[in-house]
Amino acid sequence: MASLGEFEFIDQLIRGQATLGQSFHQDPNALGIGDDAALIPPLAAHEQLAVSTDMLIEGRHYFPDVDPRSLGHKALAVNLSDLAAMGARPVAFTLAAGLRSIDAPWLTAFLQGMLDLARDAQCPLVGGDTTKTAADAPQVFSVTVMGAVPIGQALRRDGLQTGDELWVSGSLGDAAFAVNQRQPNLKLNWPQPRLGLGRALLNIAHAAIDISDGLQSEIRHLLTSSSMRSGVSSAFAAEMNWSALPLGPTLSAAIASGKISQDDADIRAITGGDEYELLFAAPAACAEAIEAIGQSLKLSLTRIGRIVAADAPTIVWRDAEGMPISEALDARLRDGGFKHF
Amino acid sequence: MASLGEFEFIDQLIRGQATLGQSFHQDPNALGIGDDAALIPPLAAHEQLAVSTDMLIEGRHYFPDVDPRSLGHKALAVNLSDLAAMGARPVAFTLAAGLRSIDAPWLTAFLQGMLDLARDAQCPLVGGDTTKTAADAPQVFSVTVMGAVPIGQALRRDGLQTGDELWVSGSLGDAAFAVNQRQPNLKLNWPQPRLGLGRALLNIAHAAIDISDGLQSEIRHLLTSSSMRSGVSSAFAAEMNWSALPLGPTLSAAIASGKISQDDADIRAITGGDEYELLFAAPAACAEAIEAIGQSLKLSLTRIGRIVAADAPTIVWRDAEGMPISEALDARLRDGGFKHF
Repeated sequence: MASLGEFEFIDQLIRGQATLGQSFHQDPNALGIGDDAALIPPLAAHEQLAVSTDMLIEGRHYFPDVDPRSLGHKALAVNLSDLAAMGARPVAFTLAAGLRSIDAPWLTAFLQGMLDLARDAQCPLVGGDTTKTAADAPQVFSVTVMGAVPIGQALRRDGLQTGDELWVSGSLGDAAFAVNQRQPNLKLNWPQPRLGLGRALLNIAHAAIDISDGLQSEIRHLLTSSSMRSGVSSAFAAEMNWSALPLGPTLSAAIASGKISQDDADIRAITGGDEYELLFAAPAACAEAIEAIGQSLKLSLTRIGRIVAADAPTIVWRDAEGMPISEALDARLRDGGFKHF
Repeated sequence: MASLGEFEFIDQLIRGQATLGQSFHQDPNALGIGDDAALIPPLAAHEQLAVSTDMLIEGRHYFPDVDPRSLGHKALAVNLSDLAAMGARPVAFTLAAGLRSIDAPWLTAFLQGMLDLARDAQCPLVGGDTTKTAADAPQVFSVTVMGAVPIGQALRRDGLQTGDELWVSGSLGDAAFAVNQRQPNLKLNWPQPRLGLGRALLNIAHAAIDISDGLQSEIRHLLTSSSMRSGVSSAFAAEMNWSALPLGPTLSAAIASGKISQDDADIRAITGGDEYELLFAAPAACAEAIEAIGQSLKLSLTRIGRIVAADAPTIVWRDAEGMPISEALDARLRDGGFKHF
């Protein structure tokens, strides 16, 4: 798809690649942007490929006045978060972009944010496609990320076992609160994919998922996927501990200053999207190993519930005394996840 | 990214997958749509991954009234054509879509066209992302295709050798003529990726590229990539045989009926995009082997030029008598490729 403007953009991409460290480009079997397809160096013999794709549309996923550097970071981060949730190591990614025009300063900043994270994650940009879209159309970016995971060991959604404990990394609610307050926030604008955690959980966690739609939605995904697994004799339900929720620092400060009630803050933490933390399930016997992983990664890991057998996939939230939460609170949790349609 | 409309669409995708043959889904190490990332069964030990990505935008790459089945076919076909040009076998693909609404009949037809080709090419759809775009925004589709190629043997653009002959598969010009005439055309609407040819050319061709931008552009890509290859002592030029051009049947009929002049038809064949034929370079000693490949694939393969050493990458077109074509014709070839910006 040749033309001057596109070549200039692609040149920028390739120059950006030059800062990614040389291991990819020095591999004689690797080939980046510029041919019909990119070539990825062979994976290790014990590895298989994991793939995830996402599309970001202006006005839908981000505002036109977003900091382009943070947008570039986030466009890659949300895909890397999917790899983290599988326990995969990043291998490479592709970027397709529909642009109204070649706005060099904006694109340079966008790519800087994206390629800085790519370097940190050792995930080179290997392929691209740029297209001009209409003058009044939203810009659009599509990222596809490839990772490698030991064969048969990926952390899937459908692996829950009765007795598993549910854990969540980091803290919750700050991203959703920042969207609501229309304020920038590290959690919202610069999410950190939990790649180290995902890999450390291989052979420990039975199931994992990243929190893009909100904790409640993701718990539901684990329960329904696992309940539909062939060979399971009953469905899985989650007994959740409301008082254990690890609220984010911004949300905690807002409670302290009376800006938001404790209940409202908790609801945000449970239903807010864009968190990109990992929710995972592991046998109770692994609790010490998990604590040790958190300490070595300097990442807080919090036990927030456990998995029980049930007639149907259900989520029961209980308060500090073990009593189910009020009907009113429960109603507010329903349909709280982020919706695209 | 959960919501009812999206789930319905994804359900359609998954149901479509069920018709793809069961080999992917029966592999215990394979995982399709529905988790954070898809899992691809391990490649063979001697293979490496090839990846290509493309974005299709309504109003730019296709008209809103396009037959959705042919659009679905083409969205995948252009990516498979990139794999063909590397000599790769298809492995899997992902689809990201930005949709104004869930138009079920349209999407069903789109997916049917895409998944029919996916089945033929043994390339399952393994991952997806759907997003709602604004009511007045163009729809957008992004496909990323993954293939496998024997390690170190991919057909790259930069492998030309002096003395190589240039070949092209199939015929040229019908797609560009159909765009110009605003008429449907098999070549334009239902391109057939030359996957069998690409794989048959492994260990035979020195370089290959698919014709998406037009023959002249693609020759230039081969020449410039190969001339920049480290270790080459001089640049490569192409001596092209104008009279050998394999014009498409529609274009030939248009000449016969006086609808277009021979020169105009030839110019279209040389500069027209959207052909998705393979242009490849191979040693003269391989001519018989190449003819045999064409016969076994029932695909015409035509020798249209040869590679010589030169001071700079240049393309010289000669007529049947071996004389350079007129200045006037030559000028018309310049900048004839399809431009995105």
